Amino acid sequence: MQLFYVPELINGSIEPDEMELRHLKVLRKKEGDSIRICDGKGHYSDAIILSLDKRSISLQVVEIHEVTKSAPRLTLMISPLKNAERFEWMLEKCTELGVGKIIPLICERTESPLRKMDRLQRIIRSATMQSKQYFIPELTDPLKFEDIGSLELHGQKFIAWCERNDRKEISETLESNSDAVVMIGPEGDFTADEVLMANELGFQAISLGANRLRTETAGVYSTAVFYMKNT
Amino acid sequence: MQLFYVPELINGSIEPDEMELRHLKVLRKKEGDSIRICDGKGHYSDAIILSLDKRSISLQVVEIHEVTKSAPRLTLMISPLKNAERFEWMLEKCTELGVGKIIPLICERTESPLRKMDRLQRIIRSATMQSKQYFIPELTDPLKFEDIGSLELHGQKFIAWCERNDRKEISETLESNSDAVVMIGPEGDFTADEVLMANELGFQAISLGANRLRTETAGVYSTAVFYMKNT
Repeated sequence: MQLFYVPELINGSIEPDEMELRHLKVLRKKEGDSIRICDGKGHYSDAIILSLDKRSISLQVVEIHEVTKSAPRLTLMISPLKNAERFEWMLEKCTELGVGKIIPLICERTESPLRKMDRLQRIIRSATMQSKQYFIPELTDPLKFEDIGSLELHGQKFIAWCERNDRKEISETLESNSDAVVMIGPEGDFTADEVLMANELGFQAISLGANRLRTETAGVYSTAVFYMKNT
Repeated sequence: MQLFYVPELINGSIEPDEMELRHLKVLRKKEGDSIRICDGKGHYSDAIILSLDKRSISLQVVEIHEVTKSAPRLTLMISPLKNAERFEWMLEKCTELGVGKIIPLICERTESPLRKMDRLQRIIRSATMQSKQYFIPELTDPLKFEDIGSLELHGQKFIAWCERNDRKEISETLESNSDAVVMIGPEGDFTADEVLMANELGFQAISLGANRLRTETAGVYSTAVFYMKNT
């Protein structure tokens, strides 16, 4: 059953944004139909549509269910990209594949700041509902690399680095049933100083396989490996 | 070192298409520079730029190397999408992740034919060079589902199907060091008849994890699992 996002599971009239209204229209929902609404924080309900017009929808909420979140959590720290569209689809795909938290990371060689946070949040929300998950991943404000020491991070910590050395593959190193943090650099890669600083904070350098992956592909691939190990 | 596509590794003047010329320009290449050229069929050479103008490039090829292809091969049979852009990025990402062959599969619920094959070939070629691979994946003409029996397919054969049953996870079933074929359906999924026909041809139904993935994400995820097991 399709999920439909509402900020709160309440009886009565709500005004979903355009995206969700379009979504309802595509699904050809009408009065009397039942839809599954979800707040993206683990609560859902099968609600009845009492009325529906161009701007708002009135719902009767029947019973509220709570989903317990027990799966391990992946935090992706990843540099914004010059090409905003590539960053957007990375967010969409990582969300579908169950990422827990995304921290945009401003590295020395990051070429663009992150804009349109609202738009990015909507993409994530929509991909969460579309892939039938009850928890929306957290997207934080951008973080400067020099401030990574201030984060409280749980589980295994990895930094994906393109330079050749004796790094292990992420697929061999990432453990099942454990939280993890993966750091992905900008198109020009991390600087040696950044790698050193990450190492000092317990980040282990890993390889993402034989091919040179673009930043956004590296993000999706890391998330895919985590999803594979924990699904 | 960046790879630069040429159809043939020969001395003298060649006329690369606009995409490759733009690529050279971005890299600020000039006369006297060495570039690594590759034919996408496993041959490469470090060539010297003798001259370079807006339309053509003259190269001196030094020594031709041949790469042996020993890795197992993934064939992805996947339905075209209404949204052409989503199909294009799927092709780009699967190429980066080392897919061997892509067969666009016209299923009963496929809503759009595949257009602009030339454009798709260019995307694949560019992603191959960009990810530093010496073999360009093969993109075939679209194939009707009813004709799948005519294909000669090697290795394990899987069909990703959304309906619930006792399917195993692709991550558990896919073996390392073996060719594989993965079939991904359209947005409306395969019909029961299609799944039956695939089963009769030896395709095993598999799951792609707990989340409902879009068609293009399913393609990238399957390729990521194969890449992970064989990198």
